[in-house]
Amino acid sequence: MCRWIAYRGEPIPLEYYVTRPSHSLIAQSMHALEATASLNGDGFGLGWYGEPEEPGLYRELRPAWSDENLRHLCRHLRSRMFFAHVRAATGTAVTRTNCHPFASGAWLFMHNGLIGNWTVLRREVEALIPDDLYACRAGTTDSEAIFLAILGADLTQGGQGDPVAAAARTVAAIAELVRTKGEGAQFRFTAALANGRDLYAFRYSTLDAGNTLYYRQSGADVVVVSEPLDSDRENWTSVAPNTVLIAKAGTPVEFRPFLPRAQA
Amino acid sequence: MCRWIAYRGEPIPLEYYVTRPSHSLIAQSMHALEATASLNGDGFGLGWYGEPEEPGLYRELRPAWSDENLRHLCRHLRSRMFFAHVRAATGTAVTRTNCHPFASGAWLFMHNGLIGNWTVLRREVEALIPDDLYACRAGTTDSEAIFLAILGADLTQGGQGDPVAAAARTVAAIAELVRTKGEGAQFRFTAALANGRDLYAFRYSTLDAGNTLYYRQSGADVVVVSEPLDSDRENWTSVAPNTVLIAKAGTPVEFRPFLPRAQA
Amino acid sequence: MCRWIAYRGEPIPLEYYVTRPSHSLIAQSMHALEATASLNGDGFGLGWYGEPEEPGLYRELRPAWSDENLRHLCRHLRSRMFFAHVRAATGTAVTRTNCHPFASGAWLFMHNGLIGNWTVLRREVEALIPDDLYACRAGTTDSEAIFLAILGADLTQGGQGDPVAAAARTVAAIAELVRTKGEGAQFRFTAALANGRDLYAFRYSTLDAGNTLYYRQSGADVVVVSEPLDSDRENWTSVAPNTVLIAKAGTPVEFRPFLPRAQA
Amino acid sequence: MCRWIAYRGEPIPLEYYVTRPSHSLIAQSMHALEATASLNGDGFGLGWYGEPEEPGLYRELRPAWSDENLRHLCRHLRSRMFFAHVRAATGTAVTRTNCHPFASGAWLFMHNGLIGNWTVLRREVEALIPDDLYACRAGTTDSEAIFLAILGADLTQGGQGDPVAAAARTVAAIAELVRTKGEGAQFRFTAALANGRDLYAFRYSTLDAGNTLYYRQSGADVVVVSEPLDSDRENWTSVAPNTVLIAKAGTPVEFRPFLPRAQA
Repeated sequence: MCRWIAYRGEPIPLEYYVTRPSHSLIAQSMHALEATASLNGDGFGLGWYGEPEEPGLYRELRPAWSDENLRHLCRHLRSRMFFAHVRAATGTAVTRTNCHPFASGAWLFMHNGLIGNWTVLRREVEALIPDDLYACRAGTTDSEAIFLAILGADLTQGGQGDPVAAAARTVAAIAELVRTKGEGAQFRFTAALANGRDLYAFRYSTLDAGNTLYYRQSGADVVVVSEPLDSDRENWTSVAPNTVLIAKAGTPVEFRPFLPRAQA
Repeated sequence: MCRWIAYRGEPIPLEYYVTRPSHSLIAQSMHALEATASLNGDGFGLGWYGEPEEPGLYRELRPAWSDENLRHLCRHLRSRMFFAHVRAATGTAVTRTNCHPFASGAWLFMHNGLIGNWTVLRREVEALIPDDLYACRAGTTDSEAIFLAILGADLTQGGQGDPVAAAARTVAAIAELVRTKGEGAQFRFTAALANGRDLYAFRYSTLDAGNTLYYRQSGADVVVVSEPLDSDRENWTSVAPNTVLIAKAGTPVEFRPFLPRAQA
Repeated sequence: MCRWIAYRGEPIPLEYYVTRPSHSLIAQSMHALEATASLNGDGFGLGWYGEPEEPGLYRELRPAWSDENLRHLCRHLRSRMFFAHVRAATGTAVTRTNCHPFASGAWLFMHNGLIGNWTVLRREVEALIPDDLYACRAGTTDSEAIFLAILGADLTQGGQGDPVAAAARTVAAIAELVRTKGEGAQFRFTAALANGRDLYAFRYSTLDAGNTLYYRQSGADVVVVSEPLDSDRENWTSVAPNTVLIAKAGTPVEFRPFLPRAQA
Repeated sequence: MCRWIAYRGEPIPLEYYVTRPSHSLIAQSMHALEATASLNGDGFGLGWYGEPEEPGLYRELRPAWSDENLRHLCRHLRSRMFFAHVRAATGTAVTRTNCHPFASGAWLFMHNGLIGNWTVLRREVEALIPDDLYACRAGTTDSEAIFLAILGADLTQGGQGDPVAAAARTVAAIAELVRTKGEGAQFRFTAALANGRDLYAFRYSTLDAGNTLYYRQSGADVVVVSEPLDSDRENWTSVAPNTVLIAKAGTPVEFRPFLPRAQA
């Protein structure tokens, strides 16, 4: 039950959302309000886009709240699109390679949720990853496996295809695995995906409304979060269950159904 | 506002108190009940006595709850006297050298509390440490400084003197510093000190009842804790404020006043 | 190109071989003499047997030479059978879960060598691991995969079978994979395997004499090492290429051919 | 015997000097050529100036060679003035707070060398730090103490004074301490100091020529290093012993004697 923030807009210092707000991501690492686990102390990560096409990554297995490097980086790094994530592990080890976000080429991904009964389903989920992307698998989380499977589903369409369609096919395939072999387990997928230009945020779950997701839009700037960064609830709009938020470069946010229950 | 456990008695695996009880020290690292800060995720440490005269130490800056090494060690290490501590930092860095317990020669020490206004008072407290012990100062905490000052106060009496008297003189000197130059700050000292044979546990505070301290005695075995390890409160007896618990080798626990308010 | 030590015999403090000798494993972490890479600074680990059937593990991603915990543990832990390992990573991440030794149930394993072209062959090697053991795969190294595949090959014979036969079948299968799909890559396997009673040490390589392996026997005590722990070469006997050293409980060391070249 | 790089000039990605050259600082962390210790694996650090007046810091206790975060940051961070340092500890703990560079306000400092007999002299060197700066002392190294003492010596002249004069007074005072109480110890000071505009690099030693120092100038860009970053020695000019290199904003590099032997 992790917590995360994704931003797209005018270049801003990362501290603007990660460390400064009253209920910043750092505050959420110690005490989240809308999560099953209020404690998110199993590592954290930043991913950001700058001049190179490939995003930068800073991931660390210590808790976010005591990491001085994180504070320095959030003050000094400016970016037009960035991810930040604090982790509550659900069974896999606390290592940097299991920390979000994950990167491959120009893509970034992070996740809040889980594939239930992961030790049983792991092998079949990993089988969704094409060989050439399997070499990128540096950790053992369900989240990283989903990411590489989505990239693979896109690549099988020639790449640079439709990330939402690739995510839908992958998530549907995993949901089917969970349904048939998961022994009653749940699959929760509240996640963000980006390529440096476009940002996608998903709220999906097999059995319930899924983990919370909110956003705030102001001109061309959009910030998507697990839970509001301050107590002024009017600023924040909840994303409906089984929905994908799409923030393409230079366009307002739009929403589409994502594997609505009848379809899943 | 850390949490700790000290044990003296028949050799037992450390897991018996550190990881197994329903409200074990590991559980307290995530959610302590009787502390200002419920979260103790700024590192942890074990100190134990075995065949060598000098105690063993295992200290780590990661949170206790996700450290697999800690679980292995608690299952495999058996000891007649051991300390375990989970840290909530009060201003100094999260490093191994700032984690409790601290060791010097045959002595072990750990602390729950703080010297308020530490950045102002630090220099004068460090001045209480004799030169030869100052070389052992590996970190920057108030706790380590108190420990080395106590050892120094004992050594000035020829060593192997009376640790309670040495602690009383040191704590009184620091209390006086806090009173005169601390600008209203508090000094809280709930601490354990041992030499492999005898165990001392202190509950002291300049302005209030001080941080909680409990113990349980069963035959020759005694365990002293920041807060009870299970919900069966009848098992646990609170140590009164401004009191020192003395568990000398092979004798029942005794209590003495420790700097009672009128005296301090 | 890691370095390691395995011991079986009278219970001794681990420091006797890990930290004290003139060319101890700690010294080898900074400057190994008989390895391609003289530097073994990518983490380390201890595994030891005590009263519980399952071995204890202490693994850390920092270099061995600066870890004070390691020195404390080596002074305080006594064991009748232990492994110690310093790592030089060959492409996979520096995480605790990638550090040797690896444990599963009562078994311990550590490895010096590599499966060449690992990113290409990884998937097929992992396919050798049975489903129920795949859940134990916590890291991403070739070494851990070999270990779990060997355990699986033994289990398919009903378990508690012949570990040497299981290792031979597994290593032969991997050698065949490397030969047919490795594009000229090498497979080097100098490894130790133990269950708390018996110790096995392997020296094998597909293309050359393989990584060095030495042992020293004194009464019922045997220590097996990547390279001698002191400059007195007469103390140490080299294990021949393509050989397995078998040190069963209470018996002298014996040697058998292990996949001799003609057979492999 | 650490290794370091300091840069002032047109904003460039840090990777240009830290990770890319054939004998980059990362390469030097594994195998330095002109140092007593060829291994610099006891942590590392980056310090850089950007939009905020205070420099950014990234310090880590792991070796530089295996840190993926470092590679990402060096690719993404651009700066007009930055420091990078790999550490070989000389007696103090491997913690982030003991890693260089050190920062205070707008100032950055890093050091290669040592105050010999540090455990004996430490207290008197720390006494050179004014009270208000002593609160910034987060670690226990001689290097950090020298830095804070230099800042203090400058502040006693009203601040924003002459950093070279402040360094000369401090270094002379320490050299005198070492001479009178160091029992034959050596004091080596090859260090860099900067404030975001001006860069100062010192080569000084009490008994010999001191640790090596080189620089390369190209237009307004200057890079100062412990040892050349490539094998083309013609690119690099050695800084003479007992000399300070001064690279003030927008001016060419100049050199001045720094505590020449007769004077020290």
